[in-house]
Amino acid sequence: MKIVIIGIGLIGGSMARDMRTALPGAAILGMDRNADHLREAESIGLIDREARPEDLAGADLVVVSIPVNHITEQLPGILDAVGDDTLVIDAGSTKGPICQSVSGHPKRRNFLACHPIAGTEFTGPGAAVSGLFQDKVNIICEVEQTAFKIQERALELFHKLGMRIRYMNPEAHDRHIAYVSHLSHISSFMLGKTVIEKEQNERDIFDMAGSGFESTVRLAKSSPAMWTPIFEQNKENVLETLDEYIANLRDFRDKLQAGAYEDLYQQMDHTNRIRDILKGIPSNKNNS
Amino acid sequence: MKIVIIGIGLIGGSMARDMRTALPGAAILGMDRNADHLREAESIGLIDREARPEDLAGADLVVVSIPVNHITEQLPGILDAVGDDTLVIDAGSTKGPICQSVSGHPKRRNFLACHPIAGTEFTGPGAAVSGLFQDKVNIICEVEQTAFKIQERALELFHKLGMRIRYMNPEAHDRHIAYVSHLSHISSFMLGKTVIEKEQNERDIFDMAGSGFESTVRLAKSSPAMWTPIFEQNKENVLETLDEYIANLRDFRDKLQAGAYEDLYQQMDHTNRIRDILKGIPSNKNNS
Repeated sequence: MKIVIIGIGLIGGSMARDMRTALPGAAILGMDRNADHLREAESIGLIDREARPEDLAGADLVVVSIPVNHITEQLPGILDAVGDDTLVIDAGSTKGPICQSVSGHPKRRNFLACHPIAGTEFTGPGAAVSGLFQDKVNIICEVEQTAFKIQERALELFHKLGMRIRYMNPEAHDRHIAYVSHLSHISSFMLGKTVIEKEQNERDIFDMAGSGFESTVRLAKSSPAMWTPIFEQNKENVLETLDEYIANLRDFRDKLQAGAYEDLYQQMDHTNRIRDILKGIPSNKNNS
Repeated sequence: MKIVIIGIGLIGGSMARDMRTALPGAAILGMDRNADHLREAESIGLIDREARPEDLAGADLVVVSIPVNHITEQLPGILDAVGDDTLVIDAGSTKGPICQSVSGHPKRRNFLACHPIAGTEFTGPGAAVSGLFQDKVNIICEVEQTAFKIQERALELFHKLGMRIRYMNPEAHDRHIAYVSHLSHISSFMLGKTVIEKEQNERDIFDMAGSGFESTVRLAKSSPAMWTPIFEQNKENVLETLDEYIANLRDFRDKLQAGAYEDLYQQMDHTNRIRDILKGIPSNKNNS
């Protein structure tokens, strides 16, 4: 079995780690624009060697785990190059533009659009960990566009990685993920920005920061190279979530100014329902 | 040695746990408006028995770990009741109003205003854990208002609990803590509110939430009874942080709408500096 991982970072590298166990004997090859990442991935055993372009034609599985702007640019060419029986999966956080980029492609049936809801705020092959996908949800979009035999092999792989499958259309995926992922990243980045700006005038402010602050700004460590194109590709949905978030913050601010404390109490009390909701989310042991 | 803990919840209970080890043989008594909490604290051994009002006069140490509105209401009466040699400390997240509430009190010199930067999003005696204060910062305000001998005993206690001491005036404390603690809680509560509101129309949205969302909304599990009075007492500073946070979010939103992606990239890249800043914050092993 020959596997080519395009983008051997946190996601591609973690998948490689699990596939070493789940698919013993498979040859795992890697491609990456970053030569240092490629060398590191080989030296720590994530991949057996660098993949050459001609490896795509004979690959059983190609994993495309690169920033979403690179997926939409490169996916048509990747499909051009793969064999008739190659399964191609992606791991992008936007699904509409990615599905659109290969709509009508002669090898569209070789591609399965995926979004594994797994990750950490770290990047690169050194951030790759085993078991990252265990019990995590993998959202599959436009499953009906993928050849049945190819689907079957993908599901077998996801089963071996321990993933829970959900099917969704790309529009619903992009709308929902804006709320539960993209907005969290912006709220965290802007919180970090606000406090760093303040710190420029007030020394030692971070000496007062506790674990609550740490948790809330954790996502502000995330890679701008990964996230800028996600916000661009999911712009309309992200703008909607931002407008609602800002409106809620403004309302809280105005009620605080007006001294409407009972109202603030009720808002927070109602939001405590998040306790029960979060119980349903598998935690990520690999979080910092 | 006789210790009275007023408010035997997460903070008071965790202090009681550490004092069992640090001060063997000390009698630890508790007061709490919540009779269930009092019974629970006794049954799990946090306290030896309920404190009676007359216990205050003979106490060596009184810990006031109740919501900040109750501190400002009750602290003058507590000082009235304690002995001439009793050390009284609080753990409130606002320091200006608390110091103000006992300014000029005949026993002001028995009180040391403290804010241990430690906690979790849980509440009540069942949430109390050992070692919560180890390596955490304890901010002391208006130290010069406290009798020297009383200060000395407080510092000895904090040393035994493993805390790092910082001195600050109440105004600076309240201004800085608004940024690194109070704002985080509001950003998290409003993120939870925004997503819960969306979920009312869109089922299964939380099935798509990963560990990033979990981390960012963790503080939205916090107690409204504790946080509403904090926001009220620190209203002016909190309003300032909210205005700056909302302005940053609006700017991000407008730049996204305008397609100024390079600018968004730069903002996020600059905010990645939070990685180095967070390395200086001791993690809390007791976080969920």
